[in-house]
Order: sequence, then C-alpha cells, then structure tokens
Amino acid sequence: MSFNAPVKDMLFVLKELAGIDTIAELPGYEEAGFDTAQAVLEEAAKLCAEVLAPLNVEGDRNPSSWHDGEVTATPGFKDAFRQFAEGGWQGLQHPSEYGGQGLPKLIGTPCNEMLNAANLSFALCPLLTDGAIEALLTAGSEDQKQRYVPKLISGEWTGTMNLTEPQAGSDLALVRSRAEPQSDGSYKVFGTKIFITWGEHDMAENLMHLVLARVPNAPEGVKGISLFIVPKFLVNEDGSLGARNDVHCVSIEHKLGIKASPTAVLQYGDNGGATGYLVGEENRGLEYMFVMMNAARFGVGTQGIAIAERAYQQALAYAKDRVQSRPVDGSAKESVTIIHHPDVRRMLATMRSLTEGARSLAYVAAAHCDIAHRHADEAVRARHQAIYEFLVPIVKGWSTEMANDVTSLGVQVHGGMGFIEETGAAQHYRDARILAIYEGTTAIQANDLIGRKTARDGGAVAKALLDEVAQTVEALGSASGAAAVSMRAQLQQGANALAQVVDFVVQNVKRDPNAVFVGSVPYLKLAGIVLCGWQLARGLLAAQRKHDEDPAFYGAKIAMAHFYAEHVLSQAGGLATAIVGAQGGEGVLALAEDQF
Amino acid sequence: MSFNAPVKDMLFVLKELAGIDTIAELPGYEEAGFDTAQAVLEEAAKLCAEVLAPLNVEGDRNPSSWHDGEVTATPGFKDAFRQFAEGGWQGLQHPSEYGGQGLPKLIGTPCNEMLNAANLSFALCPLLTDGAIEALLTAGSEDQKQRYVPKLISGEWTGTMNLTEPQAGSDLALVRSRAEPQSDGSYKVFGTKIFITWGEHDMAENLMHLVLARVPNAPEGVKGISLFIVPKFLVNEDGSLGARNDVHCVSIEHKLGIKASPTAVLQYGDNGGATGYLVGEENRGLEYMFVMMNAARFGVGTQGIAIAERAYQQALAYAKDRVQSRPVDGSAKESVTIIHHPDVRRMLATMRSLTEGARSLAYVAAAHCDIAHRHADEAVRARHQAIYEFLVPIVKGWSTEMANDVTSLGVQVHGGMGFIEETGAAQHYRDARILAIYEGTTAIQANDLIGRKTARDGGAVAKALLDEVAQTVEALGSASGAAAVSMRAQLQQGANALAQVVDFVVQNVKRDPNAVFVGSVPYLKLAGIVLCGWQLARGLLAAQRKHDEDPAFYGAKIAMAHFYAEHVLSQAGGLATAIVGAQGGEGVLALAEDQF
Repeated sequence: MSFNAPVKDMLFVLKELAGIDTIAELPGYEEAGFDTAQAVLEEAAKLCAEVLAPLNVEGDRNPSSWHDGEVTATPGFKDAFRQFAEGGWQGLQHPSEYGGQGLPKLIGTPCNEMLNAANLSFALCPLLTDGAIEALLTAGSEDQKQRYVPKLISGEWTGTMNLTEPQAGSDLALVRSRAEPQSDGSYKVFGTKIFITWGEHDMAENLMHLVLARVPNAPEGVKGISLFIVPKFLVNEDGSLGARNDVHCVSIEHKLGIKASPTAVLQYGDNGGATGYLVGEENRGLEYMFVMMNAARFGVGTQGIAIAERAYQQALAYAKDRVQSRPVDGSAKESVTIIHHPDVRRMLATMRSLTEGARSLAYVAAAHCDIAHRHADEAVRARHQAIYEFLVPIVKGWSTEMANDVTSLGVQVHGGMGFIEETGAAQHYRDARILAIYEGTTAIQANDLIGRKTARDGGAVAKALLDEVAQTVEALGSASGAAAVSMRAQLQQGANALAQVVDFVVQNVKRDPNAVFVGSVPYLKLAGIVLCGWQLARGLLAAQRKHDEDPAFYGAKIAMAHFYAEHVLSQAGGLATAIVGAQGGEGVLALAEDQF
Repeated sequence: MSFNAPVKDMLFVLKELAGIDTIAELPGYEEAGFDTAQAVLEEAAKLCAEVLAPLNVEGDRNPSSWHDGEVTATPGFKDAFRQFAEGGWQGLQHPSEYGGQGLPKLIGTPCNEMLNAANLSFALCPLLTDGAIEALLTAGSEDQKQRYVPKLISGEWTGTMNLTEPQAGSDLALVRSRAEPQSDGSYKVFGTKIFITWGEHDMAENLMHLVLARVPNAPEGVKGISLFIVPKFLVNEDGSLGARNDVHCVSIEHKLGIKASPTAVLQYGDNGGATGYLVGEENRGLEYMFVMMNAARFGVGTQGIAIAERAYQQALAYAKDRVQSRPVDGSAKESVTIIHHPDVRRMLATMRSLTEGARSLAYVAAAHCDIAHRHADEAVRARHQAIYEFLVPIVKGWSTEMANDVTSLGVQVHGGMGFIEETGAAQHYRDARILAIYEGTTAIQANDLIGRKTARDGGAVAKALLDEVAQTVEALGSASGAAAVSMRAQLQQGANALAQVVDFVVQNVKRDPNAVFVGSVPYLKLAGIVLCGWQLARGLLAAQRKHDEDPAFYGAKIAMAHFYAEHVLSQAGGLATAIVGAQGGEGVLALAEDQF
C-alpha cells in the first residue's frame, strides 16, 4: 500500500494544459517556471512516499483519540507534522513576507494533491490552515496578520474553520453562536460548533479557531454573522502563550472514514466566555468566510482527485499481482494476472481517465486563479477570476463525486479481498465518502453553479468556455487516428448538450426555479464530464504531437482519452435529457410529502 | 432506524406485474394466490419490524466474534433465529414432504427481500441454508435428503457453501482441496476454505458444510471437482449428534460491512481428515453447486433491492425531519424540511425508482422460475426457464450495482450526519458494498450474460424479451398523460439501444471476444436499466388504470416511472455508445501492462 505521486502526469498537465510557462511570466512568479515546479514536486513526492503515505493505514486503525478534552493524534502524526512544517510546506503558496514560499497555486495544487493522496486525514490539517491564512490575509488587520500568519505558516499553530452548529449545516442563516463586545475591544464568544476538522489535537502548540457568531442586535440571517479569531491559548504581548481560552473539545465523532482526522464538537464560553477578536467588520463574516471556503472547496476537489489516484494505484498493484482465470480470447491456457481481463482493464481505465480528467481541469483552474491574482491587466484578472469561480463548484462537485465511483471501482477490482479491511481498498472507499459532503454538498455546489456562476452573468462565462471547447473540437478535426476521431465526435456532442443545458438554465431559472434546480446536480455532472473531457482532448492532441519522444507514456495518454470519450463523455446526452424539457423531476416535486 | 416492509408496493408488483393469479393456476400452487401472498407478507413484515430490524445496528456495533475456534453471534441473534425457525420461515419455498410450506418463489422472494432489508447480516444465514437445501434436493440421495433437509428446514441445522480458497476466487479451476475415499464409502476431506459466510456460529446446534474438493486422479480444472457434505458434528444412526468433525474455524474476517455475519476461514482435515459424504457423482460438483449458486445469485440480487429499500426509508425519514434552508422557489420565508428541496427530491426519487424497478424485475423473474418448475407443459417450462436464467445475472448484477448508488445517495441525503456512524446511513452503504462482489462479481455476471445467456442461443431469449418490451411501448402509445409520453419515448430508445447491443454481442463474441467483453458490464447495466424501465412502464399503465381507487399511491407510482424514464432510462444511449463500435476499450486492452 505504498504511494508514489504521479509526478510525470502532473508535469505533463502543468506544461501542456495549464501553461506553467505563462504563469512564470506573471509579476512575482518569475522563478516559478517548469524547472521549479519539477524540483518542488519531486521533493514533495519524497515526503509523501516516505513519511506520510506509510501512516495512512495506521490512522485508520488507530484513529486520533479524545480523553478529557484533549485529543491525541494517531501515533506518528505529530512527528510527521513537524517534518512537514520544517520542510516549509505549509507556506508553499503564501507570501514570503510572512514566511511563505510565494509559489503559484499551479504549483501548490499538485503538491496538495499528493499530500492528500498520501494521507487524506493528515492533509486536512494543513488544508484548513491554508484557508485560515487566506481569510486573515484578506480580511485581517495588519496586526492580526503579523501576529498569526507567520505562526500558522511555520506550523507552530494550526487553523480551523467553525461554521456548523447542530441546527445550522448548509444553512448558515441558522447560526446561533453569539459574541459580546468587551471594553478592551475583544469579544466573549459563546456557542456550540460541530464537525470542526482538526478542532483539537496535539500536533501544534496552539490552534487558531476562526468562528462565525452573532454580535448583539445583528440582523437576522446570513447578513448578521461576524467572524472571530479565537485562539486555544491566548497570546501575550511578547508572543508567548498565555492562559487557556474558554473553548473546549467535548467530544469527537465516530466516522465512516478519515478516522485519523479528529472531528470535534467545540464548546465556546461555558466558563464565562471565550476571548475572541473580530476579523474585519461586524456582520461581514460570511463574506470573509467565503474566501476561506472557496479555497477550501477547491482544496476538497483536489482531495477527490488525490484519493482517486491512490485507489487507482492500489487497484493496479493488485491487478498486476492476482492470478485468476484464463483470458476470454484464449490467448493463454493458464490462469493469468487479472489485469489481462477486459473488465478489469475497463475498471482501471475508468478510474485512471476520470482521475486524469479531473486533475487536468483542476490544474487549469489553478492557473486561472494565479492569473486572476497576478496579471498586470485588471480586465485580464477579472476575466480569469470569473472563469476560476465558475470552475470551483465543478472541480469540487465533480472531482468528489467521481472519487466515490473510482474508489468503489478500486474495491471491485479487488473482488472479495476488497471487502476485507486489511487490504486497504475499503479505507479509500470510506475516506472518500465525506468529500462530496463537506465544504458544501454536491447540491450546494450545483446551486452555486446555477445561481452565482451561470444565471447571474446570463451564462457568459459558460459560453466563453464552450467557445474554447469548440476550438479544441476543431483542432481534433485536423488530427489523425481513431482516438481523435472518436474524441471529436463525443466532445462535440457533449459540448452541444452542455450548451443546451446552459441556455435552459439561463432562460428558466427565474420563471421556474424548481424545474431548473431539480436538474442542478445533473448539470454539474454534465459540466464536469464535458470540461474534463475537453482537457483530456487537449491532452490527446499534445500527446500526439509529442508521441515519439516517449511512446509508452503518450500512447497511454491517447488510449485513456479515447476510452473516456466513449465511456464517459458518451453520458452527456442522457444527462441533458434528464435536465432539459424533462418533466419527471417536476412530477416528483409535485408529490405530497406523504406520497413518499 | 425502524423498518416497515413496503407490503403495498410488493403486492402491487405481485398482482399487476408478476401475475400471482397465474401462478395460483399452476399444479401444487392452488393455495398460493393473492390472499395467501398478502397474509404471508404481512406476517413476515411483522417479524421483520419487531424482531429483526431492531438488531441490525446492534450487529454492526457488536459483530459476531471469534474465540478459540468458536463463533458467538451478535447478542440477540440466537433468539431471533429461533423465532425465525419456529415461524417456519426457513421452509417457506421448500417441499412440504420435508417440512416446508411449499410456496412459490414469487411469494418467497418478497419475504426474503424484507428479511434482508430488516437485517442483511442475519438474513445471510437462511439464504445460504436455502441454497444448501436446493442443492441437496437436486443432487442428493434420498437418504441424504431425508437425513438433512428436515433439519435444515427446522432451523436445527444451517447450511454453508464452501467454494473459495485463497488462490481460487472467481476461478474455481484452481480449487485444491482434496477428498480421499474411505472403505465405508465416506471421504476424508482436506483443505482451506475462505470467505465462508456463517461458516461457524452458535445459532444452531449443527452446521452442514457443502464443500468442493477433488478426489484422487480427478481431471484438472472445473471438471474434476466433486461436492461433499461435511457436517460440523457427525450424525449417529438415530439422528443424534455424534463426534465433532475435523473442520475448524481458524479465524473470521474484519470486514467493511455485514459485520454481524461471520465470514469464516475453515480448515478441513488438520487432525486426520474431515469426514465427508459425496453428493451425487464424483467430478460433477460444479454442476450441482451451480444449482445452489443460481439460487444464491438471485437471492443476492434480492439483497440489493432490500438494502436499497432500507436506505430509502432511512433517508426519507431524515428528509422529512431535518430543517435546513429556504425553498429555491420562494414558497416559504423560513427554513423548511429538506424534502422540499429539489435535489433532495431528486435523490429520493432516484433511490425509490431504482429500487421499485429492480423489485419489479426480480419478482417477474421469480414468477418465470415458478412456471418453469410447475407448468404442466414441458415446452412452456423450458421457455420460462430460459427467461429466468437470462434474468438471473441481470437481477444479481444490476440490483447490487444500483444498491451501491442508492445507499450512497442515502448517505448524501443525510449531509454531514451521513458520515457519522451513529446515524446508521453509513452502515447500509458499507453493508451493500459486498453485494456486487460475492456470489460472482458484476463482471462474472456479465460474462454469464454474454456467454451462456446471449451468445449461446444467438440472442433468442433477449430478442423475445425485447418483443415484449415493444408491446409495452405500443400500449404506452395508447395511454395519455406526460408520463406515458415520456416513458414511451425513453423506453423505445432504450429498447433500440439494447437490441443493437444484443446484435453486436451475438455477431462479434467469437470473432473478437475482447471487444465484446470489455463492454460486458455496460451491457449488463444497459439490460438492467431497460428491463427495469420496462417493468416500471407496465406499472405505470396499471397505475393509470387503477388510479382513482387510490390516487395518492398510484399517482406516486406514475411520478416515479416518469422520473425513471428521464433520469435513468435516458442513460441507455450512452451505454450503447460505449459498447457498440467503440474502440476506446480495445485501445486500453492493447496497452502493455507497464503502460498502466
């Protein structure tokens, strides 16, 4: 159950699809070209293979544990986190003025992917810390930035994100935690927060909780939520740790997966109030939290790709080892390793092509994000920001939904052994299952895709992307070979289906919201399938160009794209049927509650 | 987490789709009409709701445990099994001359479904015993039948099925267990069997293991396998229990799900040889085991439907209870129960329509099996037997694959709570995952569908079924309403896709087996989607006829069929694309092993 990061494929995507060379032309990223990317990825891959991956099974068998308010991480995690922090990995994408490396998201994303593939539970801790850093850099005061960000980057502290309460999951309007202003400018925070990932642990000396709460007389709903820093230990003026704050972990959850990652119930203010510090302005907390959430949503999409890659590697190793049955084509008289059986190949190709497609789209999205942050021209920045924001719910929703399918196939390749926990295949299946839920379920992503990302601009960004897809279709028309022919046909059909659905959404969302939203998740899946197919098509063209340099590698890229066209892109028409002009969903919406 | 068997829907299917009235015209089934079915189902539902369902969570939290060769079932299971046996449920479908009730499979199947929905782990024990009884009735001597069957029916003994060995999973040619003939006509059996469901336990006083092994000088491969009865305790001439036999449970597995069901490693003959008795003739064991396996495969398909129903009920209860967010159509100013949100409805409708479709097809298959066994006319029997055998891999493969999807949606409806084990949604997700694996993986079912069920008769049975589908399409043309119009269009397209694939399989399976078998699982899924859609279409027509008798119930049936047409049947074209004339699969088959 070893793991080796797919550095070669990652670099292929960085160079051929996501344009690392273009990113290196942006101000401040001059050093962040292909060579830097390669060096950083190889170093990260080493840490993942040697330190983090071996702890993944241990985390499942020996989860983080709670005793009397304290959480002890899985044995080995604390030391691994120290190595992670000392290597400077937490600061990879953060500004050098606070101790970071200042590298682009396009280099950070593959590093995060491999970190999560090596050890999903472990990687959640830095992922949340990344989000906390981004929120502070966006909305914190200069003093807050100076005080907290370097500590978070160095790994002395870690960050958490406190939104959910028992009655307030997806619906943050229902948040009831409250914060009372004190004479010294601080606040006293009271309330119960649940599902707080790494909300308590012993890997760092302090934790910085970012907490949503209401100040007195705040407006109802989401417009009355403020954001607070609540440190586990208060900090003295000289930066040393002071008194224990009034926030306590009363329990951790017993979960289906990611067991090493403690999911805490945090109680604020049972002993007089937890000292908190307002971030930005009162009542603007949700807005700031969205900064953190968007980063985290993209990060969770990356997790989906990561666990899919891990499951693929494990299934592949088993398929090359397990001997069972003769080939159906009579090419051998004896039983052979199961990788020779057509359906095992189909499963492996499904796993791999879905993973590579999602990886390609995510890295391309990361490049858009980098351009949106650093390009000299404001109009260019705005355009790329809009594309990035359009892609975030797709990267999050699709990569995690496909991860459920891929990890399930990983179990299936193992046959009966897949159901036995010692094999490890089942852990990926269990671990993956949270990804389509946390940081906004797939339905929440799909609502975002429809509302803020498609309807609001009248489908402009979606159509701009479809124009780019059309260019790829055209390029495929000039390419030779069965793979290009097939991809061209399927990508064209997929793009037509997506265009039809975008029009349907734009035209009907106000007039008949139920009819549109009942197709929201199918729309998200359709967009994921088509846009990932588009990236695989671009990859196919690049692989054809470069084929002779490395026929084995590029030949496999071509074969996977071809397979995806026929086995995955071919689903596009059916999804469009379910959305456009369909009345079955509305019929179901019209049923009375007790008809269910 | 209660469970109430969907008796109303079951009776609808029995009467309107599977023709219970026709079954009651068969010799020996005169008493087995609708009224009997209703009475039996209601009684079974009571046992399930009151005794078995409440033990389901307990079985997950407190699995059967191994100590020193003995397995102790989950607390409460032994008593529940006694109640099950005393109620006569084990004998429901077995001949009255051995103590059974002699009821048709069409009544037995819904009872099995609800048993499995109530408690999948528990129900596996009677399911395996059913298979053992069928094998003995088919191939056992009269003495063996008299000696063992009544004990199995009464629940004093239970049966197991011993095929798998560490090196021999799907590939029984690799079986190495051996049996040495003794002078008294018995055999000494030696070997290791793994994955033996309920292979050791304390719920019954004795176990009858049916074991595949090789006699000396047997032919290589599957033609050299014989079937033996190996009792845990030997039986004296007077029927009392004698010495402990030399078969021992050396461990049980730590599994992803169905934790209450002990999965045993059995060691035969470590102390001189386990006494076994040949069933039928030497070297014909696989043939007999197939009797048992076919029954078990159909039974596992039923398990898929069962766990899907259970997951649906649980998700539905949560959706009616959980308050979160305002409706997208602005129909309420406050947060509402989540069943009002379009995507939650979509998920519930997907779960329910998939479950009802699979249920309908399984019961229809059961009716074919009954006619095949009891009809006076041999030609009629043969025709129905062929249809039943065609449907078995579809019922097994499709019902279990859809169960993975349905239980995953069950988790998704719960949001974050779905990932927390105390909710119970995750248990169904974990429990379900074995179903598409054991008794032959989906790929094994798909190979059977292609080889023995489609290619061998040149697609004759498949085409006969498609003729029946065409009649339903025609009937839909005369029906009114949006649901019928939509169903007609989608069913027609689905049937066309399936017909095209059947032709492709028949024409190419010999010439280019790899190209056909790489599409084997997509073919099975296509067949499942279309044939279940066909049954839902028949149900739609029946519901339209009967609508005014019970508008709420029949209105929901119509809405679900409509939904299925657009959201599930619409996938048929994409699946056909992946199979017919596709070269992507072949491209992947052509890759060298190290290109993966």
